[in-house]
Amino acid sequence: MIDVAFLGTDVRAAGTAVVIDVLRATSTITLALSSGYERVLVAGSVDEATALRTDGRTLAGEVGCARAPGFDLGNSPEETLDPRTTDLVLATTNGAPAIVASSQVADDVLVASLLNLDAVCEQLAGREDILLVCAGTDGRVSIEDVYLAGRISAALEGPRSDAAHVAEAVAAAYTTAFDALSASGGAVGLRREGLESDIAFCAQESIVDVVGRLTATQGGAAVVTVATVAVGASADAPVEA
Amino acid sequence: MIDVAFLGTDVRAAGTAVVIDVLRATSTITLALSSGYERVLVAGSVDEATALRTDGRTLAGEVGCARAPGFDLGNSPEETLDPRTTDLVLATTNGAPAIVASSQVADDVLVASLLNLDAVCEQLAGREDILLVCAGTDGRVSIEDVYLAGRISAALEGPRSDAAHVAEAVAAAYTTAFDALSASGGAVGLRREGLESDIAFCAQESIVDVVGRLTATQGGAAVVTVATVAVGASADAPVEA
Repeated sequence: MIDVAFLGTDVRAAGTAVVIDVLRATSTITLALSSGYERVLVAGSVDEATALRTDGRTLAGEVGCARAPGFDLGNSPEETLDPRTTDLVLATTNGAPAIVASSQVADDVLVASLLNLDAVCEQLAGREDILLVCAGTDGRVSIEDVYLAGRISAALEGPRSDAAHVAEAVAAAYTTAFDALSASGGAVGLRREGLESDIAFCAQESIVDVVGRLTATQGGAAVVTVATVAVGASADAPVEA
Repeated sequence: MIDVAFLGTDVRAAGTAVVIDVLRATSTITLALSSGYERVLVAGSVDEATALRTDGRTLAGEVGCARAPGFDLGNSPEETLDPRTTDLVLATTNGAPAIVASSQVADDVLVASLLNLDAVCEQLAGREDILLVCAGTDGRVSIEDVYLAGRISAALEGPRSDAAHVAEAVAAAYTTAFDALSASGGAVGLRREGLESDIAFCAQESIVDVVGRLTATQGGAAVVTVATVAVGASADAPVEA
């Protein structure tokens, strides 16, 4: 069964959970791993991220869309293109709790964005119990997350839940990914902060071929690395929750 | 703001909450009030409904779509067409908790179905803080509830949330209400119990002009009566939660 949780708090037990926070956490995690960061430590707040600061780590995060005070980077995916260290610590209000909540109910947790859409669908091909987890924004449903869940669901074979049908209807309602992202409430805050270019960047489809995967949790943070599972194969290691 | 909660557990504070459980609770409540029942006491379980049994009350409810043992009626709307008493006690697993949860966060709680779609939209015209609450089915999102939320949202003026846009996309994805109801997981159980006619019945649009409204809670049950609010006016009495 392919199913969708419209909020990170609505997760249920599943074989594979796929966490989606298109604007911008899972887009940033994906691009960071593709750019060469070996690990992304996903923290639920600026304070949690600060507590994870060490010499070998770059800190990225936002407060109200803008770079958090004292941090090395904001939460724009493009800021991760030139890795400074092996570890990126990313503070993200909605993405982190969705990943951590998913780790508690799913055997395998992947991280999806439009940037790696094809690679995500290849990872999921052949899996039977898939929950697409939309992070949402502060407890509210986000169009762009439901849109991507619908795109993924529509690309997969097998039975789907009512929630998956709902997401597919949303995916079909927009001509382009950019249209869906532009229609979202999240886009308003990005435009206000002069970060409109992030919307266009995050709307790009399948420009990288890595998929992030939760491999551990550490002090409340989710540790995401590149999934090395062969196409169509089952997970290569259990999540250490 | 017009907003949508995709599950009865995802309610938030709102001026007006509109509870939707198309298959079949809110359709049955609406038709019962239209047929002449003065009050519908909506209970969360067969046991709770049984505890509310008195001589002046008719009991309706289902177990796995079929009539509950010892009950007078099942949960098919048409069974309420000839009132036997002034009060109907309705046991409904998903509708009751959604109504009770809504009463705890909203100033006014209305009950919507396709059967009274136009009347619901007339009641909502001019209101500014509306939460459309999809009851769902056992914690899962139901297409038919999201479909009706989208139909209502699309008929109203004013700003809407991402969730409302999602629901409107679902409403636009089906040519007819019957198509939406037929696509739902809930339709499977009804067909299995030989209750396919309920799907067609609940898919009828605006065949009655009453709107149910929560006026009190009683022993955990929600007491729903006919809303007497004039079109466009504000609520005529507070909810006694």
